[in-house]
Order: sequence, then C-alpha cells, then structure tokens
Amino acid sequence: MANPIRIGLVGVGKIARDQHLPVIGASPDYTLAAVASRQGTYDGVPNYRTLPEMLAGRHGLEAVALCQPPQARFEAGLAAIEAGLHVFLEKPPGASLAEIGLLAAAARARGVSLFASWHSRYASGVEPARRWLAGRRIRAVSIAWMEDVRHWHPGQDWIWETGGMGVFDPGINALSIATHILPPFFLTGATLSVPENRQAPIAADLRFTDAAGTPIRAVFDWRQTGPQTWDIRVETEDGVLVLSRGGAVLTIDGRDQPLPPEAEYRGLYDRFAALVRSGASEVDLNPLTHVADAFLRGERRLVEAFTD
Amino acid sequence: MANPIRIGLVGVGKIARDQHLPVIGASPDYTLAAVASRQGTYDGVPNYRTLPEMLAGRHGLEAVALCQPPQARFEAGLAAIEAGLHVFLEKPPGASLAEIGLLAAAARARGVSLFASWHSRYASGVEPARRWLAGRRIRAVSIAWMEDVRHWHPGQDWIWETGGMGVFDPGINALSIATHILPPFFLTGATLSVPENRQAPIAADLRFTDAAGTPIRAVFDWRQTGPQTWDIRVETEDGVLVLSRGGAVLTIDGRDQPLPPEAEYRGLYDRFAALVRSGASEVDLNPLTHVADAFLRGERRLVEAFTD
Repeated sequence: MANPIRIGLVGVGKIARDQHLPVIGASPDYTLAAVASRQGTYDGVPNYRTLPEMLAGRHGLEAVALCQPPQARFEAGLAAIEAGLHVFLEKPPGASLAEIGLLAAAARARGVSLFASWHSRYASGVEPARRWLAGRRIRAVSIAWMEDVRHWHPGQDWIWETGGMGVFDPGINALSIATHILPPFFLTGATLSVPENRQAPIAADLRFTDAAGTPIRAVFDWRQTGPQTWDIRVETEDGVLVLSRGGAVLTIDGRDQPLPPEAEYRGLYDRFAALVRSGASEVDLNPLTHVADAFLRGERRLVEAFTD
Repeated sequence: MANPIRIGLVGVGKIARDQHLPVIGASPDYTLAAVASRQGTYDGVPNYRTLPEMLAGRHGLEAVALCQPPQARFEAGLAAIEAGLHVFLEKPPGASLAEIGLLAAAARARGVSLFASWHSRYASGVEPARRWLAGRRIRAVSIAWMEDVRHWHPGQDWIWETGGMGVFDPGINALSIATHILPPFFLTGATLSVPENRQAPIAADLRFTDAAGTPIRAVFDWRQTGPQTWDIRVETEDGVLVLSRGGAVLTIDGRDQPLPPEAEYRGLYDRFAALVRSGASEVDLNPLTHVADAFLRGERRLVEAFTD
C-alpha cells in the first residue's frame, strides 16, 4: 500500500459535508490535512479561510479537492497547480469551457494530475448499462431529470447567477451519464425556461441526435414536487434499458438488474488516487460542452419569478 | 502542378457571391463543378436545389464548400463526408460545438479532409501581428467590433434566430484573430444585450483574462452607424500594436506597417488545397468555444426591439 495522499479541501458546503469529507475520512488512500472555506468549518483539522492561506500553512499538501461554486474554481485551481498540487474538481469543473483548457495545459506543464470529476458516472448502474448498450442498436433515448430545487439547493444563490447554470447543475449529471453510455451526440434545439427575476433556467427541454439520426430527448425541471425523477430510458432493438434514481437502479425490459451498493464518491476518490499515482489526468469536457451548446443554441422563454 | 480539385458549393448567398465563387474561379487549384442552393443560382455550372441532388448529378466531385447558415451545416457536412468528399466549412463551422466534434470524427473515419475556416485569420496584418507579439509581454488587450447590421446583414433572419448567434456572427471574426495572436484566454464575465423581439444579442461586452491575469476586453455592437470599427489593440511592454479594419491595417506605436494586398479567401482556399493534398484536417474550435462560453456565462439584458 502506498502512503496516503495528503489532501486539502476547499469549500466546506453541502456536497463537501455530505460526500467528500466522509469519503476522504474513510479511505486508506488519503489523509485530510486541512480545509479552507469562506463560510463552513470542519472539526479535527486546521481550518483556513482561503486556499493561499491553507497553502502557506505548510501541511505538506500533495493534492486539493475544490468544492466551491464553479465561478471561483479557476483561480484556486491554477494556484494549486502552480504550487505543485494535484487537483480534484467537483462538477461542473468551471464556469466556462475555455478555462478548463487552460487548467489542463497548466497541469501538463507542471506535471500534476487534474481530475474533472463527474460523480454520477460512478452510480452503481452506469457501468453495467454502458456494457449492455455497447454495440446494440439504439432506437430512441429519453431523459427526465426532475427535482425540487427548494429541497436540493436551499438558499444557494450562486446557482441562479450567471455561471451557476440553474437547472443544468443537476442536469449535467444526466449528461455525464448519457455521454458515457451512448455514442457521441449533439444538440439540435432547446427551450430554456428562465424565471423573470433570475439569469439561469429553472427548466430545459433539449433535443439531441447522433450520426445515425437517433432521437434523444432530455427534460430537466426544477419545479417537481412530490416524487423526484432521475431517469434515462434507452430503447434498443434488443429491449428497453432504464437507469433510474440517478443511475442507482437498472432495469432491462422491466427486470431489475443486481447492482453493487451505492459508492459514487468512493469511486471518484479511488479514481483520483489512481490518477495521482500514475501521473495521469482525466478531463472530459463533453457534459459541459452540451450545456454550453444548449445556452448557445437554445430558445429562451421567460417564466414565473422564482423565490426561495 | 497537381490536377485541379473538382469542387461543389452549397449555399449561394452573399458570402458565396462576394468571395467564394470569384476566388474558386480565379484559383488554378480548383474547378467549380456545380452549385446547390435553395434560393440562389450561379451561371456557367449545373445548379441544384440540395446537396443530395448535386451528389446524384455525378460531377466527379472531390470536395464541397458549405456556405449555408450554420444551422444547416451538420447534415450537409455529414452527407458530403460519407460520400467521400473533402469539406470546407464557412465560419462559424456549425450551430453547436458538439456537432463539429462528430463531423471531425466522421472525416477521420472516412479519410477525408475537414477544414473549419476562419477567414479573418488570413487578413494581411494578422500573421505579422502574431509574429511581433510572440514572446512579448502583454499588458492589456481591447477589442472593438462595431458595425451596422442593416448594412452588412440586410434581411438575414437566420442570424437573429437561435443558432444564428446575432452580433457574434461578426464578433467571432475578432475572436478568431485574438485566439490566433494571443496566449490562451478565457471568459470571466459578459453582458449580452438582446432585442426584446429577438433571440440573439445585438451587442455584447465581454471580459476575458489569461493565466497571467492580463485584462482582455471585447465590445461587439451592431448598432454602429457612420464609420465602422473592427479594431484589436494590444498594449505590450515594448509598445502598442493595433490591428484595424478587421486586420487589413497594422500599426505599431502608431507607425503603419507595410502589408501585402488583401487576399483573405484566396489564403483560405490555398490552405484547403494544401490540406486536401496532404490528407490533413484543420478544426480549431477555440473561437466558437468563447462564443458558447459567453452565452453560458453571460448576463442577459433586454434592449429595444430591432426591426430590419
């Protein structure tokens, strides 16, 4: 067993508390050395307000996980890379496509690993779904990602601001799975519904296709109360595959497939440790490219104002 | 001298008549074999309404130039590639980033050349500017691309529709030059001004920076009457470089630099012939990536309705 990687975490918010910090704490691959956060705190390790202060604290850091809002990701990522640290980016990896290209080039130049993570790809059903679909002829795909923003993003103002992406913040999880299990596709049209008092969409209706002309439809909606829906349905010549609950459940022609227990973030941190130890990077921009294409090509319509 | 390349052109509109058809006609590298257009016609060669009809006409075509609006580019590009033709794409290369990735993959698989052209990079002053800037320390960049849409795009409805990109249709020319002569940069913020009766912006104010923190500002505006402005100003530690008239004039510290005569499209078609003969492709998505980032990250404000 290699020595644990001394890691710092930036941005102690909901996702860091729910996932990153427990998984780092339970993994033999990591030692949590410090955290930095403008608002949150975490017991048991040194706490700083900013990444530069954490770097100055001389904790022998080898890596950082960046969990703050995407608008602040580039500056921290570049500072960490220039300090010689490996960098784990929570999704989405940044607020623009071009900035990730610069980070990737900086990581190559400095010889450190950059990991643009997509946690939903590590849901239990995704890899079995990818294997089952490989080589099968696909007739149609429909994606429904519908949840209650008040429940999942209470008071998160950044998500409604420019760069926050609105309903694409969860929707990009669906796109990260779809780009992993389907042949390459592209957007042909979209409707984005934007609350009249906000910059980012609360709902999106997306039409894609691929080189074979397969119809692929995705509906994202943050106005869903009651049961929540995170489903991808793929009709093939050999039957219908459905990934539901965000990839945690897989059925083929209605029959439940046996899956290992949920371990999305454990999978991400295992992957990051492997990247660090092999000196490789993994930066797949396809999910964010589809989001940018939807903003570029989509029709906008104003809808009812949203207040938290 | 190699045999001329038998080329067809799709989309006989303003740019095809003003530039493509005269340049193809004057070049020893090409023989114009046919054209296809829903609305335009061109004397002296067989005319078709669509690309499939032109392909069925058995003109021994080796290549096509696609000059129709970007929303129709993918389908024609894929059909041409699958028919074994080399493909020249007018700018912008498509209505989404992802679709160009699919076209590039299809061209690789079929062994044909794909050229995503950026004509402004062939303006006379651009290459001398690039050489002068290489290795110099840049302090600030400002770009002003301001023109009268009624003069340059009379009655072009597609340009105001989703996928038409509005003022980014000329603005992407500035970005194609900037991405060619400057170190990599990325968007940090933007304001897009959208007429209340249109989908696409009539003006944009863009803030970029690079890994060194250089301030880069670009202002695109279609409401400019009187003198037109297509200027890029680069302040360096060794003096100020200004590319004006879209790259046709270059001054350094106010002194005019001698330049060869204008030959943008001749340069493009020379480049395409070289790509075809060497079996290579050239697909640089950086200019379109910055446009997509501006739509993704930009703040939108509604402005006065626009009518042609």
